[in-house]
Amino acid sequence: MARITVLPEQQLAELKRGAFEILPEEEMLKKLKKSYETQKPLKIKLGADPSRPDIHLGHTVVLQKLRLFQEFGHEIYFLIGDYTAQIGDPTGKNKTRPILSDEEVKENAKTYSEQIGKILDLSKTHIVFNKDWLGKFSGLELIQLMGKATVGALLQRDDFNKRYTNGEAIYLHEFVYPVLQGYDSVHLKADVELGGTDQTFNLMMGRQLQYAYGQEAQCILTMPLLEGTDGVNKMSKSLDNYIGLTDTPTNMFGKIMSISDELMKKYYLLLCRRPAVEVEAMISGLTNGTIHPMEAKKALASEITGYYHGEAAGKEEREKFEARFSKKQIPDDIQTITRPAGTVALLDFFLELGLIKSKSDGRRLIQQNAVKVNFENHTTDTLNLEKGQELILKIGKLRMVKLIGE
Amino acid sequence: MARITVLPEQQLAELKRGAFEILPEEEMLKKLKKSYETQKPLKIKLGADPSRPDIHLGHTVVLQKLRLFQEFGHEIYFLIGDYTAQIGDPTGKNKTRPILSDEEVKENAKTYSEQIGKILDLSKTHIVFNKDWLGKFSGLELIQLMGKATVGALLQRDDFNKRYTNGEAIYLHEFVYPVLQGYDSVHLKADVELGGTDQTFNLMMGRQLQYAYGQEAQCILTMPLLEGTDGVNKMSKSLDNYIGLTDTPTNMFGKIMSISDELMKKYYLLLCRRPAVEVEAMISGLTNGTIHPMEAKKALASEITGYYHGEAAGKEEREKFEARFSKKQIPDDIQTITRPAGTVALLDFFLELGLIKSKSDGRRLIQQNAVKVNFENHTTDTLNLEKGQELILKIGKLRMVKLIGE
Repeated sequence: MARITVLPEQQLAELKRGAFEILPEEEMLKKLKKSYETQKPLKIKLGADPSRPDIHLGHTVVLQKLRLFQEFGHEIYFLIGDYTAQIGDPTGKNKTRPILSDEEVKENAKTYSEQIGKILDLSKTHIVFNKDWLGKFSGLELIQLMGKATVGALLQRDDFNKRYTNGEAIYLHEFVYPVLQGYDSVHLKADVELGGTDQTFNLMMGRQLQYAYGQEAQCILTMPLLEGTDGVNKMSKSLDNYIGLTDTPTNMFGKIMSISDELMKKYYLLLCRRPAVEVEAMISGLTNGTIHPMEAKKALASEITGYYHGEAAGKEEREKFEARFSKKQIPDDIQTITRPAGTVALLDFFLELGLIKSKSDGRRLIQQNAVKVNFENHTTDTLNLEKGQELILKIGKLRMVKLIGE
Repeated sequence: MARITVLPEQQLAELKRGAFEILPEEEMLKKLKKSYETQKPLKIKLGADPSRPDIHLGHTVVLQKLRLFQEFGHEIYFLIGDYTAQIGDPTGKNKTRPILSDEEVKENAKTYSEQIGKILDLSKTHIVFNKDWLGKFSGLELIQLMGKATVGALLQRDDFNKRYTNGEAIYLHEFVYPVLQGYDSVHLKADVELGGTDQTFNLMMGRQLQYAYGQEAQCILTMPLLEGTDGVNKMSKSLDNYIGLTDTPTNMFGKIMSISDELMKKYYLLLCRRPAVEVEAMISGLTNGTIHPMEAKKALASEITGYYHGEAAGKEEREKFEARFSKKQIPDDIQTITRPAGTVALLDFFLELGLIKSKSDGRRLIQQNAVKVNFENHTTDTLNLEKGQELILKIGKLRMVKLIGE
């Protein structure tokens, strides 16, 4: 039997760090208190869509919170939506997702549970599949379940509302998804459900259905979306701005080092496992300039790499990174230029600084691998510059400039 | 093998009589022509909700049309919605209908099929129950079916639109009903579906789903709603303005005689089985005054009573009616009074005409069965007067007046 030893108020404080919202917060505290007093763990639900099996740091934002609940002694229900995946979830999409085959769903679900083992203690985690109960529904039972939700409420969901207002088709089966997700909470008798901010509506549906079935309604805890390495878009595989859990230690470390100083604060807030007070101290130190961004970033990159490849690997990557950069001589008096974030046309930029005589001159340098960015060959004539990013450009053997995105 | 001998154009002309609309009419003619050429009967579908098993003349409007199709040699599929009745159909209602038990549905369905035998040749009628195919749907198959319909299209249905606009709840299961009704057409491969005008949307859903399933889409034929004996409201049991198929011959005849001359034209159009040209001649004769309304009404009442109780019974009721009325002496110089249609307060009316000395005097007369309307005792102090209706009032032994509604 798990022992719940952390005080409810303290649990809440750690859970709140970085969270977008807890609804309703008083109810959450009440549940935590009751569970502390009775030593009965809360049932914490997180639903996962097995249609995207490769977990990246963006997904871990909510998984870290799940880990926290687990550390406090609560019971984790990691729900793989193998039934709902057969329908497709259009959340945040303007078109319906293709329906996965049984085989694909099964394969993806397996990969998924392997990966979450890097964050959760699987021996204490209930991995459940909603096909086990929803798959038993007859058509009629499903229709009766649908009688618990209203069209008006579903049309209030942002994406549905937008599509309806724009006259775009919403297929009726898309309305079923949130209702089924809500029923999962009824079946599990969940106390808390976690999700991204884009899931708020669906999580609230769980509350509504639990009411309808005469249960105590779950609280919901939503986490913000994490921007990818480009600092702009939500981290996603399709945008190629992601840091995957299966990235090599070197790639993982390097990608984290490439993010802007501003985004680093959010990564601290959402990905770091240190106690809330430490994280908050780090963020205010970075904001008021008492902590050096480069040091903080190396510490973070080392720490996160350590989570997924072992502490030793994190430390080693940091050493390798420092060794590589210390070998390069960056002049103390290096010319520093700020540019608006975005795509930099390198040939124009070099011409402007008088580094080359002509664009064909510049093109030749690039072809001969004589242009380097952060001491790596750069083989195209454009460069993507993020806000807050510092890049060391070397042009030919002699000239170096430091380029900062603003 | 049924022989289809009536020319397609003539079939269409008979089908169109009294119909609200045929959609699309060209397609209907094409189907009739093809069926005539190939001698392959069309599949004609009518769905019935077994939650209201007592058939009245209002229901027969569409059943007469079905009978016509049957006479032309087409195949009738009388579908009893025993599956859909378990959900409830909110058509035309502002609240959801209670869900019927299996037992109730079964009992009602049985009564239903007994009654339609008075209109259709049951030996040539397929009575089908949609539970036979819909009942086999798993939850998932049902969800996939729902993917064939859009929320936007469903919200265009008048009653849904009104409720959504007024902020009234539409429960999600209500959206399933039209989709299932549409799927019934797919399952039956229906060529034509009949219904009341309030069913237009649901019937069109059948077309949409047949398209989605790669079938030739059905045509639809809708019939107007029939007003009850009050001449104002749709005929319905709950409003007590109905003429039931199980009414005694005398009651049926008498109720038909009580309708207004204007409504009689509609009854001719929608209930009479004579050929379209004859019915149209009757209606224009009534309109231009060349046919006497009382004669026409007796003919209609006798005819309709004959449909359900045998021709002899219809004839007998007519004779009884005429004998009864001829025995009563109506003075040639009877005082004739016109009044606006509606409720007549009899005591005021009698006082006004000087027929009684006081209201208590009038009340006494009524209690003593001394007030008669059309030579029947009248036991209340109000009288319902329809537009165009002629009533003979007898007050005491000596006074008679003729009251006409305008």
